[in-house]
Amino acid sequence: MRVGVIGGGQLARMMIAPAVEMGIELSVLAEQEGMSAALAQAAVGDYRDAQTVLAFAKDVDVITFDHEHVPQDVLHALVDAGVAVHPGPDALRFAQDKLVMRRRLAELGAPQPDWAAVAEPSELQAFLDDHGGRAVVKTPRGGYDGKGVKVVSRPEDVADWFADFDGEALLVEELVDFRRELAQQVARRPSGGMVAYPVVETVQRGGVCAEVLAPAPDASEKLMEVAARLGKTIAEGLRVTGMLAVELFETVDDRILVNELAMRPHNSGHWTQDGAVTGQFEQHLRAVLDLPLGAPDVAAGAVVMVNILGGPQGEQLTDRFAAAMAAHPLAKIHTYGKEPRPGRKVGHVNVAADELDDAAYEARAAAAFFD
Amino acid sequence: MRVGVIGGGQLARMMIAPAVEMGIELSVLAEQEGMSAALAQAAVGDYRDAQTVLAFAKDVDVITFDHEHVPQDVLHALVDAGVAVHPGPDALRFAQDKLVMRRRLAELGAPQPDWAAVAEPSELQAFLDDHGGRAVVKTPRGGYDGKGVKVVSRPEDVADWFADFDGEALLVEELVDFRRELAQQVARRPSGGMVAYPVVETVQRGGVCAEVLAPAPDASEKLMEVAARLGKTIAEGLRVTGMLAVELFETVDDRILVNELAMRPHNSGHWTQDGAVTGQFEQHLRAVLDLPLGAPDVAAGAVVMVNILGGPQGEQLTDRFAAAMAAHPLAKIHTYGKEPRPGRKVGHVNVAADELDDAAYEARAAAAFFD
Repeated sequence: MRVGVIGGGQLARMMIAPAVEMGIELSVLAEQEGMSAALAQAAVGDYRDAQTVLAFAKDVDVITFDHEHVPQDVLHALVDAGVAVHPGPDALRFAQDKLVMRRRLAELGAPQPDWAAVAEPSELQAFLDDHGGRAVVKTPRGGYDGKGVKVVSRPEDVADWFADFDGEALLVEELVDFRRELAQQVARRPSGGMVAYPVVETVQRGGVCAEVLAPAPDASEKLMEVAARLGKTIAEGLRVTGMLAVELFETVDDRILVNELAMRPHNSGHWTQDGAVTGQFEQHLRAVLDLPLGAPDVAAGAVVMVNILGGPQGEQLTDRFAAAMAAHPLAKIHTYGKEPRPGRKVGHVNVAADELDDAAYEARAAAAFFD
Repeated sequence: MRVGVIGGGQLARMMIAPAVEMGIELSVLAEQEGMSAALAQAAVGDYRDAQTVLAFAKDVDVITFDHEHVPQDVLHALVDAGVAVHPGPDALRFAQDKLVMRRRLAELGAPQPDWAAVAEPSELQAFLDDHGGRAVVKTPRGGYDGKGVKVVSRPEDVADWFADFDGEALLVEELVDFRRELAQQVARRPSGGMVAYPVVETVQRGGVCAEVLAPAPDASEKLMEVAARLGKTIAEGLRVTGMLAVELFETVDDRILVNELAMRPHNSGHWTQDGAVTGQFEQHLRAVLDLPLGAPDVAAGAVVMVNILGGPQGEQLTDRFAAAMAAHPLAKIHTYGKEPRPGRKVGHVNVAADELDDAAYEARAAAAFFD
């Protein structure tokens, strides 16, 4: 039983542990030597090249991904060659193009911010006029971690994007007045089975996930149900296979609106590694292999994940282990084998505890040793 | 930060997951190709050959072990070359020779079954005469999983062992009237810090560990304390570094007696992977690197581990995943990448639950899918 992962980043790396534990073989096609998932690296090559990817896929039972950037023609070449690909090209389309995603979510009746496709500055100006003079413009493709996202009050603020996209539409969305951000994860098998994790609160700083509180504090039964149902509706409606993360706004008037989607294990689910019966990386492997899914139950009162962003410049993360571990014996420290660099996601800390405050204190304090 | 592991079996394999998660590099010297820990295999060679082991140890921060069979001369060659070796040769002596172990435990005042070194059949007969006519004879070296252990009523029952050991003494021990078997695990750093796990109950069948109940059911505070203190006394007294497992008899008259020792992660601690804040494989890596130790707390009401012994002959364990996972979404299934073979340890199942009965039922039922 062998899974091939395209992309050698930390998400591929974090599939290694559950694969080894279960006894599933993992092969990684990395973009270059020495990446996070190097231990399971079977090949190095360009994922945009169909021949490279076809050769890599020859001996695996299923192909899955560390990221959503594999081009549609390469994905279809795999499918045409009889390779099982999860998530498949038709699902990945929705993760690769935010306009395609918005249109499909509208068809599904999923609650969203107001949005429009704007091909011209005048169209953007009209949207701004209708939405209080400010809005969020996104490039439909190629953005991540806050890149390709800009709050604007004038079309000139994204003049360069209009030029770059050369007549293609940009996505504009209303600025949502939200109380907090949430994330709902769902795993879905090709044969249809699904499980939903409890909805979590995500805290972003500078467009990047800083910490996750699981389950979302003070979430009502109703909110948990609505979020889980929405996640399942989207997973089903978009025919997602593997893990799906739905990033949500909880508005000040108690609605939830879909912000972004990710069709892979996601930063908002790293807490599951040490806080859920089945971690998201194990769940993703089970889902893409069409194996029965594991229980998503939280294994403690509360679990908090704090990202290590940047890391100690000019040092290795391991240099800080002695101090961090001495002070925080409950902390589960995860590092990705990457060199510290400002703003880079280089690791995270999970803490599970009976009480949210304790988990949050321990996780934040332990992660601070890696600043 | 790189740990070198001598031996490529499942214990080395199960160090891979926490090593990858923490960001510690792991290199394995395997006995042959295709062993359990192949993913982290850096070399294949004979661990009895000092040159092979010295070459392997060149680029690591510390050498540790999948088993206790590396000869003393090889261990000393490593130490003499300035390599950090944990556990070190002086500690491993006690795990390599049960007579040496019994003598040292006696010096430490640790409670033991009555025992004697018997070099001649007449000496064994004398011990039998003093202990009701039956006793357990053990070869001091080379036994494991019930091999090298025999219940005897006459010296002739072990005539071949007297011949094989050619004048060297065998170990004879009284047959203990025990209620159940327990195991106490302790981690100890080279610089002296220790943590004790809760004492567990182990169930043996045919001399092989079949299941482990953690914490030991109905264990009094007193028993937990006595076992933890005994474990720490032995770890300290034998200068163990890394994980130590002390196998214990709980006698019908409420004493605990030391049965066997293991200076490495041990089958009695596999439950910690899914049931303790810090799993024994992570703890072993932290200990041998002289990093601060993690919390040994149980993360659920009860955790049960059931070994998969033998496995489905002529099939792969993964062939049974679909059925087992469909029936038992709470089960954590671990397999070792080994071919099924009668009696062979090929995997285990852990289940954590609020109630012992639930954990035991789920773990046993899930493991039964792999018969």
